[in-house]
Amino acid sequence: MKISVDAMGGDNAPKAVIEGCIAAIKSTDIDIILTGPESLLQEQLSKYDYDKSRIEILDAPEVIGTNEHPVMAIRKKKNSSLNIALDCVKNGKSDAVISAGSTGAILAGGLFKIGRIEGVERPAIAPMLPGKNKSFIIIDVGANVDCKPSNLLQFGIMGNIYMQDVMGIEKPSIGLINIGAEEEKGNELTKSAYKLLKESKLNFIGNVEPRYIPNGDVDVLVSDGFVGNTFLKTYEGVASTIFSILKTEIKSSLRGTIGGLILKPVFSRFKKRFDYKEIGGAPFLGIDGICIKAHGSSDAKAIYNAIRQAKILFDKKIIDKIKESITESLSTES
Amino acid sequence: MKISVDAMGGDNAPKAVIEGCIAAIKSTDIDIILTGPESLLQEQLSKYDYDKSRIEILDAPEVIGTNEHPVMAIRKKKNSSLNIALDCVKNGKSDAVISAGSTGAILAGGLFKIGRIEGVERPAIAPMLPGKNKSFIIIDVGANVDCKPSNLLQFGIMGNIYMQDVMGIEKPSIGLINIGAEEEKGNELTKSAYKLLKESKLNFIGNVEPRYIPNGDVDVLVSDGFVGNTFLKTYEGVASTIFSILKTEIKSSLRGTIGGLILKPVFSRFKKRFDYKEIGGAPFLGIDGICIKAHGSSDAKAIYNAIRQAKILFDKKIIDKIKESITESLSTES
Repeated sequence: MKISVDAMGGDNAPKAVIEGCIAAIKSTDIDIILTGPESLLQEQLSKYDYDKSRIEILDAPEVIGTNEHPVMAIRKKKNSSLNIALDCVKNGKSDAVISAGSTGAILAGGLFKIGRIEGVERPAIAPMLPGKNKSFIIIDVGANVDCKPSNLLQFGIMGNIYMQDVMGIEKPSIGLINIGAEEEKGNELTKSAYKLLKESKLNFIGNVEPRYIPNGDVDVLVSDGFVGNTFLKTYEGVASTIFSILKTEIKSSLRGTIGGLILKPVFSRFKKRFDYKEIGGAPFLGIDGICIKAHGSSDAKAIYNAIRQAKILFDKKIIDKIKESITESLSTES
Repeated sequence: MKISVDAMGGDNAPKAVIEGCIAAIKSTDIDIILTGPESLLQEQLSKYDYDKSRIEILDAPEVIGTNEHPVMAIRKKKNSSLNIALDCVKNGKSDAVISAGSTGAILAGGLFKIGRIEGVERPAIAPMLPGKNKSFIIIDVGANVDCKPSNLLQFGIMGNIYMQDVMGIEKPSIGLINIGAEEEKGNELTKSAYKLLKESKLNFIGNVEPRYIPNGDVDVLVSDGFVGNTFLKTYEGVASTIFSILKTEIKSSLRGTIGGLILKPVFSRFKKRFDYKEIGGAPFLGIDGICIKAHGSSDAKAIYNAIRQAKILFDKKIIDKIKESITESLSTES
């Protein structure tokens, strides 16, 4: 298997990306295509000892910044590291693409270069988050800010396949993010989506109030991208605010400092168990090719994990599975 | 001033409500009308020593539960403690109403019995939340799940008046909850609302991403009720999940237990500084009378604080101020 990796995406690019790729070729049989300014990549790569036949460099002199308009950037910067990495999937040169760059640009590029799976109305981003009891995915968290009820049904179908076939959960539970538990609660969108999800073959367990999501009792949480993004960002924001205040309070007295030192292993264990940041990369489900967005602050390990994740999606034939599920749901409908 | 209080609303009713009312008459000149089953209230009140002329009991044999359909309950249970308390404002028998009962029922009853302020399209709930730097309000958090852009502008206008005249903030900053900082970000609703807020006389500072809300840098956060509620519930859910996990981790070892004991004052200070639950009661802004929803888990102190809050809204003539602002904004428009 071959994966094209945007060497210039993310806060720690290209160093972290390159290190993650080298780790991947050393412990897996995946080959890598790295896209970015050739001389820069060659210079960086020369610092490492690795099998040169397994990392190919494709020159991409341009870089898309996180603040650029996604569609414009994809259209204008044809020689950007992201566009060249996407082209590899488009041309069959690679089997998957990974970038830690701008989410909007990856989505725009994915749609433009690779396209949607037939029958999928809207591709969606599905990051995995840590919960108290288990991890869960939210689909969508920002690719689609204005949704129709049928979009949400499809998010449920794609999320179900992902958790079932990729994550190995037998009958994933599917919940709808809503502001009340009862069927009649919510806005026009959730009320209609509820009906569609209930009538589907999914293991739909009903509405889930955001208050209970961090418990991690439900495998797949369906939402329009605006609400999903609001949840995701609040999750991250509240957690980091709490830890920042706690840190200040602990450091403000001798007693606090001593207590903090004693509790250090507890805090580390906690951090490991409940790192509120997304786990691994977030797949764009519904794109007709494997396309993973790694976290913007990815280190080498995160890139390595995203590469391994892409391999699982590839091995499990996620694209074919989504195609089948969507086709089946469309035939049931009519 | 006289306030009608729904004695049967909230998890700790009627005991906590009664204690809060007694505390209020002892330290302020506010008189109370308590509504609920007469014999029950009389029996409860008989346990306390207070000036009987200052708490009037109005018999209300029925109680509206939190799981009842709000509109149906308000229509059917005419003799419920909430309906009788609302009637007092409607008939001029009291100057404000407080309930810790069902938010939906208070809103439905407030609209039905007291009505909207002229020109206000949709009343909204505006709870205050603790932030790292300062407290802030979100308007709306659930009264309106499907909104038009003009609704959001009015939420901004009402939130501005509340923070300025009631909370004494000179030029409150107004932000729009959105999934990106730039003007062009968001869904159809936020994009249009952004334009209206920008053109208004408010101190509009632009979009605020949910991640940064807990910092408490912005005084008033405007949102449709679905997104506002999602934020609010996530805020509460993440915070309580973190503390529940931390508690388990601390108790799981001797070292943790010792560290936890040493850090107890730090945790208490933190809890005091950053109690993620709403502060005081949440006013329904846009109702043509002072109407406050106290937190469902209110204790006596919370009820006492809600009574004091109602007095400030009354003294500051919040209803008149909202009327003026809305009228002014409508005349500017045309």
